[in-house]
Amino acid sequence: LAAAEFLAVDWGTTNRRVYAIGADGAVLATERDDRGVLAVERGAFPSEAAAIRARFGDVPMLCAGMVGSTRGWVEAPYLPCPAGLAALAAGLHWIDERTAIVPGLSVIDGKRGDVMRGEEIQLLGAVTAALAPHDALLCQPGTHCKWARMDDGRVASFRTTMTGELFAMLGKHSLLADFMHGAVHDGAAFGAGLDAAADGALLSPLFGARAGVLLGRMVQEDVAAYVSGLLIGSDVREQKLVRGEQVHILADPELGRLYATAITQAGGATKVIDSHAAFVAGIAAIWKEHHALA
Amino acid sequence: LAAAEFLAVDWGTTNRRVYAIGADGAVLATERDDRGVLAVERGAFPSEAAAIRARFGDVPMLCAGMVGSTRGWVEAPYLPCPAGLAALAAGLHWIDERTAIVPGLSVIDGKRGDVMRGEEIQLLGAVTAALAPHDALLCQPGTHCKWARMDDGRVASFRTTMTGELFAMLGKHSLLADFMHGAVHDGAAFGAGLDAAADGALLSPLFGARAGVLLGRMVQEDVAAYVSGLLIGSDVREQKLVRGEQVHILADPELGRLYATAITQAGGATKVIDSHAAFVAGIAAIWKEHHALA
Repeated sequence: LAAAEFLAVDWGTTNRRVYAIGADGAVLATERDDRGVLAVERGAFPSEAAAIRARFGDVPMLCAGMVGSTRGWVEAPYLPCPAGLAALAAGLHWIDERTAIVPGLSVIDGKRGDVMRGEEIQLLGAVTAALAPHDALLCQPGTHCKWARMDDGRVASFRTTMTGELFAMLGKHSLLADFMHGAVHDGAAFGAGLDAAADGALLSPLFGARAGVLLGRMVQEDVAAYVSGLLIGSDVREQKLVRGEQVHILADPELGRLYATAITQAGGATKVIDSHAAFVAGIAAIWKEHHALA
Repeated sequence: LAAAEFLAVDWGTTNRRVYAIGADGAVLATERDDRGVLAVERGAFPSEAAAIRARFGDVPMLCAGMVGSTRGWVEAPYLPCPAGLAALAAGLHWIDERTAIVPGLSVIDGKRGDVMRGEEIQLLGAVTAALAPHDALLCQPGTHCKWARMDDGRVASFRTTMTGELFAMLGKHSLLADFMHGAVHDGAAFGAGLDAAADGALLSPLFGARAGVLLGRMVQEDVAAYVSGLLIGSDVREQKLVRGEQVHILADPELGRLYATAITQAGGATKVIDSHAAFVAGIAAIWKEHHALA
């Protein structure tokens, strides 16, 4: 096994992924586990980092994501948008001489504010790896879906939607919970949810899904896909896409396909790009920028 | 104390209200408790009814609301819209010779279906008591908000929105939960939520409320009112009111005022009417219709 030049840790709320990265930016080893920020006791981050080094190599480490929040290892202040890779490299928050946290980004636009932690690496990585153009609209579906406008290779502004969190909450805690056990795929029920959302509705068809089951107009197995269509369709509608607008989607293939269908129906064009490749390109570029700065 | 002619029980999921009603339709006594359907064990409804009679009088009883659902005493089938007081009286579901459940209403409109249980009494009562005209749009805010179109004194169709349930869920289970302890009143934060909703957004400003607090743009005490404005504003926007359209609101004064502000901002006109008076007028009219039929 070739020696890693540095380790990159995508350290989120629930999950964590470690990449051992070589001098040429290639991934030598990677591993995903559930040691997200919420699973790590306060004060236990140094020993977690030591354990990662014991497994992947005793080399420098860049951490990104919620690890830099108040609930994480140490709080790394947000950098204001617009911000690019050079700003992230210059803003690395060093815990010791070989362990740093990548800052998150913030945007303040009139009365509106927004924040991200971790997603910025994928966004900027996608552009630096030419997976998306320097001026682009990027979408990262998930618990909190990010819609980012790139301008000249930097994150110009972004908007977060609570789409995935609402879906999970409805499936666990709402009066629809008992009905939301079905699989979500890009089929007729998902499309019916998109149709209702395109009509400008969300709060009414949500209840309608329950009524539909009670009245025998909808089978229970379709409820989860319908609700997913409603939420993703509403998410896309809120972005007010211009007809023909190209959206680059950073997601796993399954969720990426649902968003692609919703965006296409709303008149946009889509390209799904590999979010892991984007992350690796982004973090490798930050590492390189850091050394250029140093 | 004058003897009641019959007892009316507004028996919902969480709460229950009993009215002892005299021969002239006047309320002789009333009591609200938390013995809603979910608090009553299956099989315990007869003894609950006996306890009510022991307190209010050993007379006939009409029950309305979720007591007629699968989880209630016995299931009373939905009557299809359009439906008026005569149809409800004819459709009373008798458990024994002096205890009946008022059926709920359903609407099927193309692929859309909707249901209500209990609200129909207030809607039809408002019209029969001349609190609202025979052709009107009525709004009943709550966990599940009902928007009903009355035509010639009957419920022609209706639409349910999951507004109150979503608000409660966000306050308990979302990443906003820690911030939603503030009071909700018709002030600047509520208005800011309405503004964001009027712009067609919901999923993005929901997350924005958290970001606003993290970035020091919003005080935590305002989050609940802002989220309430977002949800109620979205609810009203989905109704696509015609400019100047009159909405009769059946609600307690506090919630009624929030909806009135949202409806006014959306270009509608409002009148808040007394939902208890409407319920009593409705159930008394059903009782009278039943005797006219018998």
